[in-house]
Amino acid sequence: MLVTPSVHHLSPQHGTLSASTTRYEKRLSDLAGLYADAAAFDAALGSGDRVVYTVEDFRPSGASGDLCFGVTHMLPGRIGDEFFMTRGHIHAVANRPETYRGELGQGVMVMESPDGQVVTLQVTPGATVYVPPCWIHRSVNTGTEPLVMTFVYPADSGQDYGIIARSNGMRVRVVADARGWRTVENPRWRPRTEAEIAAIHASGA
Amino acid sequence: MLVTPSVHHLSPQHGTLSASTTRYEKRLSDLAGLYADAAAFDAALGSGDRVVYTVEDFRPSGASGDLCFGVTHMLPGRIGDEFFMTRGHIHAVANRPETYRGELGQGVMVMESPDGQVVTLQVTPGATVYVPPCWIHRSVNTGTEPLVMTFVYPADSGQDYGIIARSNGMRVRVVADARGWRTVENPRWRPRTEAEIAAIHASGA
Repeated sequence: MLVTPSVHHLSPQHGTLSASTTRYEKRLSDLAGLYADAAAFDAALGSGDRVVYTVEDFRPSGASGDLCFGVTHMLPGRIGDEFFMTRGHIHAVANRPETYRGELGQGVMVMESPDGQVVTLQVTPGATVYVPPCWIHRSVNTGTEPLVMTFVYPADSGQDYGIIARSNGMRVRVVADARGWRTVENPRWRPRTEAEIAAIHASGA
Repeated sequence: MLVTPSVHHLSPQHGTLSASTTRYEKRLSDLAGLYADAAAFDAALGSGDRVVYTVEDFRPSGASGDLCFGVTHMLPGRIGDEFFMTRGHIHAVANRPETYRGELGQGVMVMESPDGQVVTLQVTPGATVYVPPCWIHRSVNTGTEPLVMTFVYPADSGQDYGIIARSNGMRVRVVADARGWRTVENPRWRPRTEAEIAAIHASGA
């Protein structure tokens, strides 16, 4: 079965990709439980269930060996001292990587390995972050303008959003400070067991 | 084996990607046999074996499920009425796709299916061409400035450069005309046999 070639035009300002196959948005209410400051979250939600980010992508198939690509558009904002961020995930087929390229704005990719190593890399226009196999990842808008990123990942990757909740969040949080942002330890973070770590490394390998 | 996340800065003007793992260049002499006008090719080569294009990429591994990404920088130029172009290839694991995004300049992606369908799509800044599984592809600089593209493909794709020579070139050539460019049939093109077509579709499936 031959698929016809296609061309897709990116509008970073609008967070759109032409001839896409999927588009979804996440509102504040979809991010319940992610933030340390529950009172600040409730107050923000009380003033309106805003869209925080949208994702639009082109997914020709879900076949192994194929690719999916698209664009994420995330508004700036804060809940207490934490920035707006994505839910974060590991790939359901854990050994699948992903690339994120900064298009507009200023962000941070927070990555956590199964055994709890943390790497944060800045996402700026023209920079591509490579998220290697088996790293949990979440993007954070640390700027005052929308953070727009394009991404590519293997079409059979899937997403497991539960892995972060099962450890009571990621190991670090990204919070505002006088220099812009910094990471702080999440005291509720639960290290994964040896069995959990082994299962992640076995997924897709 | 856990790979460390990395960030890669693109310089479209220079055709470079920071923290890359591979860089190669193709000179005019590497493109012998691709052009219809052999006398024009010999004359061009006689005035110097210029670099036509460079490719720089980041290849974390060759494992199935991993990704490779990078940048191609191709100078403008002509050999007779044909533009500077890449050698062109199909993936050695033929069912692997590729994305090409225009960064600078004006180009055309020429794609040919195993059974000889031809699709040409313009590569312009902000446009991403999706080359589906099993399509032979070659990029052509139809402009007067360097054509710079970024690409992503599955790390286990490989490249088969011989497929084009085995059919005496691609089915169409891209030539200059008053409007900019057009395609013309290649009279020497040899259709692939049923057995060749079946072998391509079986590769990686």
